[in-house]
Amino acid sequence: MKDRFSLPDGMIYLDGNSLGPLPVGTAEKVQDVVQAQWGAHLIKGWNLDGWMAQPARVGNRIARLIGAPEGTVTMGDTLSVKVFQALSAALKMRLDRRVILSDSGNFPSDLYMAEGLIQQLGQGYELRIVAPEDVASAMTDDVAVAMITQVDYRTGRMHDMAQVTAAAHGAGAVMLWDLAHSAGAVPVDVAACNAEFAVGCTYKYLNGGPGAPAFIYARPDIVADIQPALAGWLGHDAPFAFETGYRPAAGIERMRVGTPPVIQMTALEHALGLWDEVDMAELRERSVALGELFIALVEEKCPELVLASPRDANQRGSQVSFASKNGYAVMQALIARDVIGDFRAPDIMRFGFTPLYIDEGDVRGAVDILADILATRSWDRPEYHQK
Amino acid sequence: MKDRFSLPDGMIYLDGNSLGPLPVGTAEKVQDVVQAQWGAHLIKGWNLDGWMAQPARVGNRIARLIGAPEGTVTMGDTLSVKVFQALSAALKMRLDRRVILSDSGNFPSDLYMAEGLIQQLGQGYELRIVAPEDVASAMTDDVAVAMITQVDYRTGRMHDMAQVTAAAHGAGAVMLWDLAHSAGAVPVDVAACNAEFAVGCTYKYLNGGPGAPAFIYARPDIVADIQPALAGWLGHDAPFAFETGYRPAAGIERMRVGTPPVIQMTALEHALGLWDEVDMAELRERSVALGELFIALVEEKCPELVLASPRDANQRGSQVSFASKNGYAVMQALIARDVIGDFRAPDIMRFGFTPLYIDEGDVRGAVDILADILATRSWDRPEYHQK
Repeated sequence: MKDRFSLPDGMIYLDGNSLGPLPVGTAEKVQDVVQAQWGAHLIKGWNLDGWMAQPARVGNRIARLIGAPEGTVTMGDTLSVKVFQALSAALKMRLDRRVILSDSGNFPSDLYMAEGLIQQLGQGYELRIVAPEDVASAMTDDVAVAMITQVDYRTGRMHDMAQVTAAAHGAGAVMLWDLAHSAGAVPVDVAACNAEFAVGCTYKYLNGGPGAPAFIYARPDIVADIQPALAGWLGHDAPFAFETGYRPAAGIERMRVGTPPVIQMTALEHALGLWDEVDMAELRERSVALGELFIALVEEKCPELVLASPRDANQRGSQVSFASKNGYAVMQALIARDVIGDFRAPDIMRFGFTPLYIDEGDVRGAVDILADILATRSWDRPEYHQK
Repeated sequence: MKDRFSLPDGMIYLDGNSLGPLPVGTAEKVQDVVQAQWGAHLIKGWNLDGWMAQPARVGNRIARLIGAPEGTVTMGDTLSVKVFQALSAALKMRLDRRVILSDSGNFPSDLYMAEGLIQQLGQGYELRIVAPEDVASAMTDDVAVAMITQVDYRTGRMHDMAQVTAAAHGAGAVMLWDLAHSAGAVPVDVAACNAEFAVGCTYKYLNGGPGAPAFIYARPDIVADIQPALAGWLGHDAPFAFETGYRPAAGIERMRVGTPPVIQMTALEHALGLWDEVDMAELRERSVALGELFIALVEEKCPELVLASPRDANQRGSQVSFASKNGYAVMQALIARDVIGDFRAPDIMRFGFTPLYIDEGDVRGAVDILADILATRSWDRPEYHQK
């Protein structure tokens, strides 16, 4: 499907785990929402062009990708805000417990949002951060919520959602998954694992564009009991009745907050259309093959780099990371030669492999350039050390 | 400046208080951010195209419009989320008090967000809602925060910011202004009135487009003490150090949360460029003249309508409302004839007058059509009663 993306000539883009590329046709859709909808319909666009229903419509597209039933996912805000909403709701489900369990591989913003919430609540809540491999065994009976990102943003290490969720439930805890590096990258089935909440962003493997809105899922049997912490008018049962008091909407709509970002949402909606043609099991198989090839070639041609991702593909998401004390400069040298990955402190070079637009030729080409940069030490030029 | 907006031929658009029209050139800017930036630069856009600094840059444009110093406003999320952030921070400044004072003319979402926060805090907080005219006298010494929207979304009634802020401060309360219907509509000076917080949206009089991001201001002398409730990574002092613990950024940047909506922000940034050519005092004068003319003509030609806005222009924002028990149907009939205002339950017809793209001819044209609809009772067709 490489031809469905507008990628610059000659670029090998291995950073879709940070920001997905531009799907062909997005520019036209965005023009349309700006000129034919906003420009021509103005305020009438909310109904005429379906802007008000868009978060539900787009949510249903996400639902299919994460194994959620129709009508259980809505869109808006940013992932951090959605983490806050889900975590707030989850804590209210276990009022006799005070621990939020997470792991050191979680994305920092999730941990920060938990910190902010804990400080806000001021009732002795605790954020307990354990090593990723200790999550299941750390599910003690004081854990209110397990807040875990399935795929580690640094290493690509991947949790088994069914196993961790079962451990959480076994300890009586609520399960909250962050699927930022999972949705569109690996098969996900939130319904099968029975997790209460899932959240994620859409600008990585889902190619929604910079700042695309986030998603939130709540299990259908619990949603009616959620009292939203962020009780915005578009989560109200009757937003346009302009009542003085808040009454949450019936289902997942209560997790909407304010006016949705219609232009971003339109870019995202277009990008999600691609997934109608994708078989996730097949995509995963090809993604694993690309990752395996990359690891084999790097270990053969760049022996000084140390694999920082799990060697077992079953424990790895759609990215491969290598560690190097010169990682920052090496990555700058790669980028200068149009092989785009990224660097995460202190020493991690990340490479994302999605078969949507990456093929074996790209992997071979990237490793050849990487090997050349290391062999010639071209990474050691002053400009590549600049931060 | 009518030629700076892309308005449909023949439409008289009196709903800029709900969604501003499309500024000429927006489509090109949005194309540019989608194709030349996202499409060509991908992840590099964050630095190369200044996406990361955009909320501060756009915030500075807003600052000029609300009388705030450079570097005291940032952008993101929605107005409801910004209300939550400001209100959370304000309550922490008065830990010995438990009352949030607001008025019945506030936009419901602000009240809902306060409700959600109060429920979350669970420490005996109270939302006290008084009539708009009683706000100053309701500033008792148990009020922690006065959370007031300057211009009433239904009636256009406008609070005197200096007076209300002085009353709040006189009672030892923190002042939080919602400027949703003020920014770009009337001269605002948050620094002069010395309010601690101000928030607002940008898709009304600022023409940022549907779902454009919101703004938040915090007074420079208090910002360093704010412990953000929504402690997102982009409000961290060093977001890309990926530390495990949260440390807020130095200034207003700490009120950023997640990844900014770059495409929406670009449309907004373009729209704000218009204001370089606008003198707010002159704009206000012309806006008042348009409103006065509208009131005079409607009262002359449509005597059955009852003015629902203050008659004194000094107590009115940039909109004029009339009440009618048939208001819903009359508004539908107006819209069918391309005079666009809107209806707010139970009986309010709203008309916004911004001299940026509305002139005397529009006002006269709108009233003629309104008078005709009433005289011929054409509003009473079944299709105009449908909801």
